[in-house]
Amino acid sequence: MVDKNGDEIASAVTNLDLHDIARAGRTYGVRRFYVITPLEDQQIMALRIVDHWTTGPGGNRNPIRREAMGIIRVAPTLTEAVEEIRSRCGSPPATVATCARAEPGRLTHRDLRRRMADGGPWLLILGTAWGLAPRFMAAMDHVLEPVTGYGDYNHLSVRSAAAILLDRLLGTYNQPNHLGED
Amino acid sequence: MVDKNGDEIASAVTNLDLHDIARAGRTYGVRRFYVITPLEDQQIMALRIVDHWTTGPGGNRNPIRREAMGIIRVAPTLTEAVEEIRSRCGSPPATVATCARAEPGRLTHRDLRRRMADGGPWLLILGTAWGLAPRFMAAMDHVLEPVTGYGDYNHLSVRSAAAILLDRLLGTYNQPNHLGED
Repeated sequence: MVDKNGDEIASAVTNLDLHDIARAGRTYGVRRFYVITPLEDQQIMALRIVDHWTTGPGGNRNPIRREAMGIIRVAPTLTEAVEEIRSRCGSPPATVATCARAEPGRLTHRDLRRRMADGGPWLLILGTAWGLAPRFMAAMDHVLEPVTGYGDYNHLSVRSAAAILLDRLLGTYNQPNHLGED
Repeated sequence: MVDKNGDEIASAVTNLDLHDIARAGRTYGVRRFYVITPLEDQQIMALRIVDHWTTGPGGNRNPIRREAMGIIRVAPTLTEAVEEIRSRCGSPPATVATCARAEPGRLTHRDLRRRMADGGPWLLILGTAWGLAPRFMAAMDHVLEPVTGYGDYNHLSVRSAAAILLDRLLGTYNQPNHLGED
């Protein structure tokens, strides 16, 4: 990630990001949600949270939450996540970086939805703090257009952006035949 | 709200709900985000958070966040929120309850979007815990269809559900002419 000043950092993992994005992911049929951090203590913390809700007491009390948290995997690097997907799916995922800044040439949500419908795997990458580092984004297969709302203000949390993107890319509500004339 | 067993409760206010929903609200042009709780200590806590980010040091450090948190108002009851909207807008809002359960006769997102485009004010009501109490929902003008994803699993956080609803109801992305054929 980058910080406020554009310097590269490793951002901290937020508990509610795991819950919200796993729940939204499971709701929209996402197979895996990789939490990627090079920081060992953050990996350990993320794994403890996931374990609590999958094999631990949280999951016993709340099987619905267990089902969502069960899609989480913790990885130290994007390369390891890509390798895991490749070994599970037989081919590596197409990588799609997200960014809150609009720039020419970015893949539209509509185009990505069409491409995803043609087959996968796909790996959608969201950042925290002040976003993914430019050096990192340049190495991805695609960079996605930002989620815009209504007007110029555009400062969604990563949790909200993930939910809206999943709805636009995978939701049945946004299929043209649902939105078109009856 | 109701709890796991269907008993009526007053749920606790969650700090990140204020931030995420205010940010999504501001991004989609929402005028006010009312945090409604009858619990006085929860009202005080919510007000302290809002003050920190509007008139306090948080807002000075982060004017973008201040702009989002500035749409929050804290009210003890829905009636007081409705009164405040009536005195500001000249007419009371149409009230729309949300619910994760599908039932016949519910207002669709598409219909609500059309009605909202015809003029307001509108008050969209989201619950925490196990959702809005049935007695409460019955007193609202409309009950909205649930946000469904892809398949039967549907357990979004209130933060994710709010973000997706705002995108469906107010976003420019979901306008038919954007999603239809070019």
